Amino acid sequence: MAAFRVLVASRLAATPAFAPLPLGGWAPSPRAALHASAPRPGARVALVLSGCGVYDGTELHEASAILVHLSRGGAKVQIFAPDVPQMHVVDHSKGQPSEGETRNVLAESARIARGKIADLARLSAADHDAVIFPGGFGAAKNLSTFAVDGKDCKVDRDVERVLREFHGAGKPIGLCCIAPVLAAKVLRGVEVTVGHEQEEGGKWPHAGTAEVIKALGAKHRVAEVTEAHVDRRNKVVTTPAFMCDTELHLVHDGLGAMVREVLELAGH
Amino acid sequence: MAAFRVLVASRLAATPAFAPLPLGGWAPSPRAALHASAPRPGARVALVLSGCGVYDGTELHEASAILVHLSRGGAKVQIFAPDVPQMHVVDHSKGQPSEGETRNVLAESARIARGKIADLARLSAADHDAVIFPGGFGAAKNLSTFAVDGKDCKVDRDVERVLREFHGAGKPIGLCCIAPVLAAKVLRGVEVTVGHEQEEGGKWPHAGTAEVIKALGAKHRVAEVTEAHVDRRNKVVTTPAFMCDTELHLVHDGLGAMVREVLELAGH
Repeated sequence: MAAFRVLVASRLAATPAFAPLPLGGWAPSPRAALHASAPRPGARVALVLSGCGVYDGTELHEASAILVHLSRGGAKVQIFAPDVPQMHVVDHSKGQPSEGETRNVLAESARIARGKIADLARLSAADHDAVIFPGGFGAAKNLSTFAVDGKDCKVDRDVERVLREFHGAGKPIGLCCIAPVLAAKVLRGVEVTVGHEQEEGGKWPHAGTAEVIKALGAKHRVAEVTEAHVDRRNKVVTTPAFMCDTELHLVHDGLGAMVREVLELAGH
Repeated sequence: MAAFRVLVASRLAATPAFAPLPLGGWAPSPRAALHASAPRPGARVALVLSGCGVYDGTELHEASAILVHLSRGGAKVQIFAPDVPQMHVVDHSKGQPSEGETRNVLAESARIARGKIADLARLSAADHDAVIFPGGFGAAKNLSTFAVDGKDCKVDRDVERVLREFHGAGKPIGLCCIAPVLAAKVLRGVEVTVGHEQEEGGKWPHAGTAEVIKALGAKHRVAEVTEAHVDRRNKVVTTPAFMCDTELHLVHDGLGAMVREVLELAGH
């Protein structure tokens, strides 16, 4: 039990007590080099987070599902987040902002990354084959001002740079839930989905977002929660995820469809 | 975009802007009543969390995977956590405790529950068919003192009560990662797994935990990360999860095995 005790005694909680998450880390076996048909390394995928928790950060179930599907697809993942304060902190048990509390987007995102995370400022498209943005209000509060400003929103400078870099290099971009508004704002004329365009009795509570997508100059395409829409010209892949009020495994499956399309567009 | 704007203007972040997560909520269709073989309601499963983040709370990938598998299995889930302060707050980007910061276990767990959570004090085995405890250091810091005291640990009073209630009622209990120490401490002679009993070059960095399981009077059974061990006499199901340093999709699959065994023992 030394490992757990050391944790407290040394006041070191991340290492060495719990090893970092090997997120689909591909490594060639010693035998691989002996064969002409050695396995191809997995796609190098950057994941951009915006905190930890649906109401003020990344929707963590979306991020986790994306990581599971990337791991299954043999991808090598690096996780990034901006080193900035959150717009605010929401007490998720009360559904209200916590007065006077501040948290850092990078530090909270590290909860999803199990400590292995880097500053978004260091993310370069040259080092990766694809980039994925999960949703959650963090995309609309910490990566942009969409939650406050709607179609007049501003996008974080590094988020905008990263989207333009991957797009310019012809590398695929995956986004889900509310995050497609980032692509709609930055990449003019892009095709994305945020699900259906009518609320349908509460099944699509954020259906109005489709109109804002159009107001931003992008094209909206209707999709089911288990589907991903692929804009092949722009290599942008989107899926509704929690824009739909449905069962969690359907959200999980839609994210699987999105990840598989991203990996395929990346040539993997 | 009204929904996103309301969020900020009204300072209400949970409702109505983002609907609560319907965690596998089973509902009979209107047609079901017309048939003699109407579908059986799903198992009612309680999930007990301990915060949000591997180093000071619930391992959120474990919790999310369990919820995905419960959703796929048609279970009706309610989420609980103790309304107590965390032992400490760890900055996951630095691997160090944040000096002078306090967080509440229930409020942080609500990030995983998307706001739908209740005080653990209100959890009664009479209302549920099974209970599941994910891992993460929260199980060893906030649900017990295992991280500090090892085999001499104390278990939270409500956690102990809940384990005894479900056990006494012959209802299944699922646990993963480090959480099996809770069952080992409370249910004398129970059989559990925390994975392998040797570190094997870092693949099982917490292998020493198996010895503490034995010192607690429980029986340890070796299992792979994709397997669940079933103690049929006590209806206790365990899987190693992040006790193994491996790829995320294998952890996800092991949690699926655990959930399926729990649902089967619950008669679903």
